[in-house]
Amino acid sequence: MRCEVVAVGTELLLGQIVDTNSSWIGEQLALAGIDSHFQTKVGDNLGRMTAALEQALDRSEAVIVCGGLGPTPDDITRDAIAAVMGVGLRRDEAVVERIRAMFYRRDRQMPANNLQQADVPTGARVMDVQPGTAPGLICPVRRGPTGSGGEKVIYAVPGVPWEMQKMVSECVLPDLQARAGERHVIRSRILRTWGHSESGLAELLEPEMRRLDSTGEATIAFLASGMEGLKVRITAKAADDETALSVLSGVESRARAVIGDAIFGTDDDTMESVVLALMRSRGLTLGLAESVTGGLIAARLTEVPGASDVLKGAVVPYDRVLKTGVLGAPDVAAVSEEMALAMAAGACRVLGANVGLATTGAAGPESHEGAEPGTVWIGLHLDGDGEAVKVRFNMARTMVRQLSTITALNLLRTRLLNRDG
Amino acid sequence: MRCEVVAVGTELLLGQIVDTNSSWIGEQLALAGIDSHFQTKVGDNLGRMTAALEQALDRSEAVIVCGGLGPTPDDITRDAIAAVMGVGLRRDEAVVERIRAMFYRRDRQMPANNLQQADVPTGARVMDVQPGTAPGLICPVRRGPTGSGGEKVIYAVPGVPWEMQKMVSECVLPDLQARAGERHVIRSRILRTWGHSESGLAELLEPEMRRLDSTGEATIAFLASGMEGLKVRITAKAADDETALSVLSGVESRARAVIGDAIFGTDDDTMESVVLALMRSRGLTLGLAESVTGGLIAARLTEVPGASDVLKGAVVPYDRVLKTGVLGAPDVAAVSEEMALAMAAGACRVLGANVGLATTGAAGPESHEGAEPGTVWIGLHLDGDGEAVKVRFNMARTMVRQLSTITALNLLRTRLLNRDG
Repeated sequence: MRCEVVAVGTELLLGQIVDTNSSWIGEQLALAGIDSHFQTKVGDNLGRMTAALEQALDRSEAVIVCGGLGPTPDDITRDAIAAVMGVGLRRDEAVVERIRAMFYRRDRQMPANNLQQADVPTGARVMDVQPGTAPGLICPVRRGPTGSGGEKVIYAVPGVPWEMQKMVSECVLPDLQARAGERHVIRSRILRTWGHSESGLAELLEPEMRRLDSTGEATIAFLASGMEGLKVRITAKAADDETALSVLSGVESRARAVIGDAIFGTDDDTMESVVLALMRSRGLTLGLAESVTGGLIAARLTEVPGASDVLKGAVVPYDRVLKTGVLGAPDVAAVSEEMALAMAAGACRVLGANVGLATTGAAGPESHEGAEPGTVWIGLHLDGDGEAVKVRFNMARTMVRQLSTITALNLLRTRLLNRDG
Repeated sequence: MRCEVVAVGTELLLGQIVDTNSSWIGEQLALAGIDSHFQTKVGDNLGRMTAALEQALDRSEAVIVCGGLGPTPDDITRDAIAAVMGVGLRRDEAVVERIRAMFYRRDRQMPANNLQQADVPTGARVMDVQPGTAPGLICPVRRGPTGSGGEKVIYAVPGVPWEMQKMVSECVLPDLQARAGERHVIRSRILRTWGHSESGLAELLEPEMRRLDSTGEATIAFLASGMEGLKVRITAKAADDETALSVLSGVESRARAVIGDAIFGTDDDTMESVVLALMRSRGLTLGLAESVTGGLIAARLTEVPGASDVLKGAVVPYDRVLKTGVLGAPDVAAVSEEMALAMAAGACRVLGANVGLATTGAAGPESHEGAEPGTVWIGLHLDGDGEAVKVRFNMARTMVRQLSTITALNLLRTRLLNRDG
């Protein structure tokens, strides 16, 4: 089963909007084991849209066309599909009612042009899932010589990402799998890691990947995610949910055995949510003293709702006199082990926290008090004890700051884990 | 002149990487007045790449193919182009030398497979601009009946964004314009704005846009950029640089006359760089007290190199006792005018700054000390005087925090401008 994606919209060709929808759909198709060999962007032009759909149908059994289902005159995906099917449009009264009800619930008058969204190519089926005013369409298309039974299909979904994603997950993928005669389920789990390179992880997981190559029960893929670390995605294909989940758990525990604490979380976990949860469960509170990271650690932690029961606050002593003045650090070099230790202890004291985490360094492009750009000291004050770690990032300012942020959070995380051991 | 874009890479189809290259190229083509009607993604497969190139050449006079020029076995764009041209590959010794020299300068041994990057379809020309090890190629392709003189062209550029962008700007676009017989230059200027909606800006600029519609000397486009504000892009097409720049200046001054101070900068300016420059030129220093924004304002300002001569530092009093303890605020409601004023004054005093900027509010999803989610007070302490502004963002937590950040910076900016007036 091959399925192409056609993204519709002149704004996509003009680069005013980046086409992330096709990427998302491509990933879902791959996870579902469906090949997608071509993806096309085309503008709001009937002739060119029709040509793009015709061609995709020549090469593949299914096409997902995304966008152009709105209520304005340049929303002509419905017309293009009708042209490819060789049929006309009919107004679907059930859809009219759905749209009317949606406006009624929002206490708004329905503009007349919204009725255009209820026009459906004759022979097409409206998807049950309809999160917005645009209905999704399942459009059977006959291809090949008469009597050959060669039925292909066009799925039309809106360009609004969350509407599109809901329809693809709940309608398009199950329909595609049914057409492909697939009866399996696909489940995946992501292991979030920090501290290993991609080749380092690949080496550690090599025996397990070789084992999976021979059994075929799951696959492992690496997704580099910058300052979010490296993701290891395990994907299992099995006859039912229970089997798939058991395969995932088996692979996960073998992966954990070799990767260890470099795995900081799974799926939707983030470094900051994990650190907050570890602190919370131990009844600890945190104070930050951020010089080189300039507020990035605080900004990341406070992005998590409910962070206030752990995070007392932060001091950003960007002027060096504040390191001594506000934080009570001694008059030592700004980028040094002593300064990092004093800032972490000062953060505990000034902010009334159990744990202090501090950063000081030279983000670049200039050096700072004799420290080369990219040199960073991270200080941690925990259980009355201090420790400091020096790191060096040979990169641009933004990356130095971001990598210092996640490295500092990861230091705190690993110390909390070791503390229990 | 029509030019299509073909992006090469299986990782693009699988959604592991979002294809931002095509969007960037599409934008550049539009600015240069060249139509781009189709953009295609295709995997690292010789047959399908050849088919995609053939088809793009059938529809358009030029094709930019992006990616697949690396040194690994799945980098086969060179082979696909040779197949379309109906020629073989020849090793270009000048390119071999360039690549060898590049490794030598980095003090590294050149792996043998890098030589593959010097293989060029016979009849193709190597671009002069070569920022990395992958050379860009200009490949003439004969199309149409013999003697019709129908020469088309394929440009091959690497998938690494900065290498690609340099080659497209400096080689591909000038070559395309020369082929199109275009002798004009295209220049654009971006006005960065904050405070107006897109429809509000369109209304203000309507007379000027109508004037430009009739003269045709320039166009105006709006680009929504989230928490970075709304960009107004003016694009002028003229016989030479001088004329284009003079048209841009004329449109800019008419736009400024109606939009006024909502324009905070031009082109590469950011809200934070503008605020820092305004403070610096007035010899002022800044202290921050961030509750609801949790360090975001500090993180944004410290992203700018050299921010330390203006920014003294920040206090993030996430626990309410720190608002009274560290900042010396009175024991009033956490989200209130009084608190915002006291925090701004406290930031000046504690951090030793001339100007204090403070935020306090409920980011959500829960309300905070009786304040509804999305309610934010911004406090400013300047020249010994305080003022506070209340805003309400009916949005999710992330947006509330980000919009509060830029709104606070913009408040400081406008007050600095009015102070002089």
